[in-house]
Amino acid sequence: MERIDDLNFEGLKIIQDTEGFCFGIDSVLLTDFARDVKRNSKIMDLGTGTGILSILLSKKINPKKIYGIEIQKEVAEMAERSVKLNSLENVIEIINIDIKDLNKLKKENKDLENNTFDVIVTNPPYKKLGTGIKNKNEKQIISRYETTTTLDDWLKISSKLLKNNGQFYIVFRTDRLTELITNMKKYNLEVKKMRFVYSNINEQSILVLIKAVKGAGTFLKIEKPLIIYNQDGNYTDEILKIYNIK
Amino acid sequence: MERIDDLNFEGLKIIQDTEGFCFGIDSVLLTDFARDVKRNSKIMDLGTGTGILSILLSKKINPKKIYGIEIQKEVAEMAERSVKLNSLENVIEIINIDIKDLNKLKKENKDLENNTFDVIVTNPPYKKLGTGIKNKNEKQIISRYETTTTLDDWLKISSKLLKNNGQFYIVFRTDRLTELITNMKKYNLEVKKMRFVYSNINEQSILVLIKAVKGAGTFLKIEKPLIIYNQDGNYTDEILKIYNIK
Repeated sequence: MERIDDLNFEGLKIIQDTEGFCFGIDSVLLTDFARDVKRNSKIMDLGTGTGILSILLSKKINPKKIYGIEIQKEVAEMAERSVKLNSLENVIEIINIDIKDLNKLKKENKDLENNTFDVIVTNPPYKKLGTGIKNKNEKQIISRYETTTTLDDWLKISSKLLKNNGQFYIVFRTDRLTELITNMKKYNLEVKKMRFVYSNINEQSILVLIKAVKGAGTFLKIEKPLIIYNQDGNYTDEILKIYNIK
Repeated sequence: MERIDDLNFEGLKIIQDTEGFCFGIDSVLLTDFARDVKRNSKIMDLGTGTGILSILLSKKINPKKIYGIEIQKEVAEMAERSVKLNSLENVIEIINIDIKDLNKLKKENKDLENNTFDVIVTNPPYKKLGTGIKNKNEKQIISRYETTTTLDDWLKISSKLLKNNGQFYIVFRTDRLTELITNMKKYNLEVKKMRFVYSNINEQSILVLIKAVKGAGTFLKIEKPLIIYNQDGNYTDEILKIYNIK
């Protein structure tokens, strides 16, 4: 069943399938983390799902263009309807394709050529196949698990698409952080900034926000912790601000 | 000028040279972080300096033996005097040698052979030569800078010394974290646990505590943030507890 949710930012709305994969706090936090992206950037949102990252970024950053890539046909169509619902067709283009087949489109659309993107944002599938508890249905499985592409594919393709000095923003699970960092290094994506997300100050961090720059030198900054809940169980001021509630 | 400081734990004391490199909070935090080391372990403390890690661990963990390796002759002699001052000669042996020459000692002392150590602890020189502001004198430079050995040497030697499944504990600067992680991976030291140290909740993290296990599988836990100061500028309860003040 589909429903339309208000994104609480400049009247933006999003269509979601309650039986599919609904966007979560990870995408909202990544959009906030990517707030230093320059206006007029050409952006690719790899694995856009509902289109949440593309839609939020379109208003927060004023990009030149965002391409949202989604492998699942039905999900891509829904994202496209969300783009139209928000009258963002001039900024966001949803493409229904496996990211591994992106190079096939380069002939018809020069704008998709390698080494031309200013920014890549991505909230990729977190889990290796065969790990953890499976989600109920196929749509959720493809959104969460590496069914068709591995983390390595994801990073290799990102690095190819980016200009030199282009920026790469990713939200990922901390349990695979060393794998992520070593693979990023392999594809010349140098981590410059990391921010760990802690549910509260007394718990381990499950999520990490990362900014890398293609071809940059080594110097990493670990930003202040991003805490979701106060000791009293309410959202922290920062989370309220990110969600535009305060 | 030398002075004797009380370590505030079971009467332990340490001799330090006020013009050399005095131990800091990093060593104290690493000792606490390594509290899950098993009793009766054979431990090597690479780059022991004043001997602080070896001396604290000797009482906190009850190891079988700790070898403290220090390249600087005067510093090693001072560490040895601290060992005697605490009557720890049976547990701690300070060896004055460049860690790269450790293999030369294996013939005379079988106990130093490769693949035999349960645990390595280290607070290595943080800085690459030619970066940052130089410390005043040579003793401080050797303790802080990679004058004689690089991070890569440090990790390679650690990995060789450790048994399979042996534990590696390190405290390091976050700005070189990606280099540290990729190099650890290269030498089969799989990061299992990281804890970021934040001066306070609104500041970036400069230090990180890492536990790796030789030959382990990938699964990383990012522990809750370690915060040094409360918002009011006083030490947090956890720091007071680590320093045995509370």
